[in-house]
Amino acid sequence: MVNKVADEPQLLSKKAGCNTHGQDSSYFLGWEEYEKNPFDAITNPSGIIQMGLAENQLSFDLVEEWLEKNPDALGLRRGAASVFRELALFQDYHGLPAFKNTDARCLAQALARFMSEQRDYKVAFDPSNIVLTAGATSANEALMFCLADQGDAFLIPTPYYPGFDRDLKWRTGAEIVPVHCTSANGFRIYSGTAFSEPGFVSVLEVLAARAPLATEFALDDRVHVVYSLSKDLGLPGFRVGAIYSSNPAVVSAATKMSSFGLVSSQTQYLLAALLGDKDFTRRYLAENKRRIKERHDQLVDGLKEIGIACLESNAGLFCWVNMSHLMHTRSFEGEMTLWKKVVFDVGLNISPGSSCHCSEPGWFRVCFANMSAKTLDVAMQRLGEFVQTSSCKAAPAALRRAAGPARSMSCPLAMNMKWALRLTPSFADRKAER
Amino acid sequence: MVNKVADEPQLLSKKAGCNTHGQDSSYFLGWEEYEKNPFDAITNPSGIIQMGLAENQLSFDLVEEWLEKNPDALGLRRGAASVFRELALFQDYHGLPAFKNTDARCLAQALARFMSEQRDYKVAFDPSNIVLTAGATSANEALMFCLADQGDAFLIPTPYYPGFDRDLKWRTGAEIVPVHCTSANGFRIYSGTAFSEPGFVSVLEVLAARAPLATEFALDDRVHVVYSLSKDLGLPGFRVGAIYSSNPAVVSAATKMSSFGLVSSQTQYLLAALLGDKDFTRRYLAENKRRIKERHDQLVDGLKEIGIACLESNAGLFCWVNMSHLMHTRSFEGEMTLWKKVVFDVGLNISPGSSCHCSEPGWFRVCFANMSAKTLDVAMQRLGEFVQTSSCKAAPAALRRAAGPARSMSCPLAMNMKWALRLTPSFADRKAER
Repeated sequence: MVNKVADEPQLLSKKAGCNTHGQDSSYFLGWEEYEKNPFDAITNPSGIIQMGLAENQLSFDLVEEWLEKNPDALGLRRGAASVFRELALFQDYHGLPAFKNTDARCLAQALARFMSEQRDYKVAFDPSNIVLTAGATSANEALMFCLADQGDAFLIPTPYYPGFDRDLKWRTGAEIVPVHCTSANGFRIYSGTAFSEPGFVSVLEVLAARAPLATEFALDDRVHVVYSLSKDLGLPGFRVGAIYSSNPAVVSAATKMSSFGLVSSQTQYLLAALLGDKDFTRRYLAENKRRIKERHDQLVDGLKEIGIACLESNAGLFCWVNMSHLMHTRSFEGEMTLWKKVVFDVGLNISPGSSCHCSEPGWFRVCFANMSAKTLDVAMQRLGEFVQTSSCKAAPAALRRAAGPARSMSCPLAMNMKWALRLTPSFADRKAER
Repeated sequence: MVNKVADEPQLLSKKAGCNTHGQDSSYFLGWEEYEKNPFDAITNPSGIIQMGLAENQLSFDLVEEWLEKNPDALGLRRGAASVFRELALFQDYHGLPAFKNTDARCLAQALARFMSEQRDYKVAFDPSNIVLTAGATSANEALMFCLADQGDAFLIPTPYYPGFDRDLKWRTGAEIVPVHCTSANGFRIYSGTAFSEPGFVSVLEVLAARAPLATEFALDDRVHVVYSLSKDLGLPGFRVGAIYSSNPAVVSAATKMSSFGLVSSQTQYLLAALLGDKDFTRRYLAENKRRIKERHDQLVDGLKEIGIACLESNAGLFCWVNMSHLMHTRSFEGEMTLWKKVVFDVGLNISPGSSCHCSEPGWFRVCFANMSAKTLDVAMQRLGEFVQTSSCKAAPAALRRAAGPARSMSCPLAMNMKWALRLTPSFADRKAER
């Protein structure tokens, strides 16, 4: 007879039960606070303003205008005929090639061209190297599963997106080794939103430029790009991401894995039409960049007026903002104390650098493209009042002088946060390890 | 100096490089043959007819009719207003509750009601216990990650879907222990397509009936259901699946994991409206069942005429067909030889039982709902000719007599193939193991 025990038997797996998911990072805690008390100019004017969300809400009118003119893309029609049946049934079964269906090929083709257009056609993306996934989150994880065994590590430059701890490590068992970059090299990133020169340079462009030279190792099949439409087109809800690789083994493995997160065929149909319209994408990319720059400048100028400096940036939907002079101690503890004040007292959800594994205390990630210009004004006004009050309370002058960016470290690898390169040890290296 | 070696350093992870994916199963090989030479009544009348695809194409006209009457659901409108912006931005960030967005709640609510309706409201599904995923494939894997540590095993009754080896084992490191069922207990399954009495009985109904009794262990929080609209509504391309669990820990972990395969918000909006229309779902479920039964009967009667028996079934989009009397040896080798003849000579892609881990040789899975009645006629005609030729070549009479289903084994667990129950060892059991 089996003894009855009062213990609740463990149900969840170790992975599901552990905290690698990283949900208790201050990044996500700030989000939770925002969700409890969200700002609304009319219904909740004292609520928290969400500046922790790198989302692009600036150019929806351009997409809406296109949708009005192209009702077939939403209506699942091709001229007079409905494509509903075709789309309802389409899926890339079991990782076999979907050569029956032209719409899926279509999205990969349109996406490849759109990615090339963003690089001013300096790099040609081959549609057959694209694996579609349900967003970049899914793409990032699938790429880790393709490349990493349990315990293998990836180098990621800091500050990096806190979600990477979940996306890259949680279920895969892979590790992240942060490569600590400093403000001196500018914490840089995003391709399609680059709004000033010199813009984003893809590692693929560098490789393309090197291609004529005989290289000892074919490096281009070791570069794998993760892309999504969430930032560049502002469509996170539609869940469209992609892995791009010139390595056939990676493309094949990732294609098989893509069955765990395929893109809805309804959404593929819509976006293949949208991205296939060259006139639209040209106009969108130019106008979107102009608007992002405008909003970015509004933030930078607003901060400048109240004595807060930003790292110069040329792309993306947020700025790295230096608030170390507002901290009472130049430490990560001081950063957390200041952050709590900004969230709870000032009512702005910004993300502390420490949540992004930043190695210098005092930096905050502040997003600007997910709100109206008016809301950004409210945010600047609140921050201005807070700075004034804080200054009266007198942070030590010596600390204020020391607030410039530290320059003692340099980043050993210039990496785009959106791709990961596995540094596989050579056979000789492995032998030496034994 | 590091020696240069000619060896190509290993790039893929062990998982990505190994064969647990199971793509070389005869199930998938049959698919590949079909893809090379697909039947078309006009353009390729001698091509292979796809009978390996459990897909429901019988009731698309009902959905299309609904779409015509409800253009807002496709057009992303709510009355006069566009909901495009709302949908473009919506995602269930980081596994936090999506209480801002009503449409996602809406799909979970509509889905819960639809699932209850299919069970004639004998079970009430709570929308807050639903985690949406990009198809059942994604749901199955996420559930495994939630419940299983590396090397843990799940009991699955045979014959089971060959894709389970990929979905449940490949990336999770979990194992499957097949529970060998025999034809004597009928290899049964699917809920929403049950077309005759006694229909499908969900384990949740059994538990609901037991609930008034005091049970030693609360079993209902150990039952986790995986559901999808791919079969019941015939929408695999739209990638809508779900995990249903009454266990808050599982719901919480699965919600966090759902970020690796979220459903497009565009598709959520459409299906929330479709499934929210009770008049439509009532009519659809009834008419769809009637059509499936009609097509099922066409297959069963057609096979009977040529001397082939099916297992009696009451649901699903395929039959288990006994062709053991056409084999030259009553073995899995004989099954493979026959299968190759049926695919290459007869031109029908059916799935051998062995690819579904069936323990008795001679059974084949034959799908009937993914083609027109005319195409099914062609398939029956081809099979009839083959049987006639085979009979002339004289399979031993003794073998033909022995063709009835074996009854020596019985299935120790009656399980719905669409859910998995983890049998967690009690503390005492674990102690005994040491």
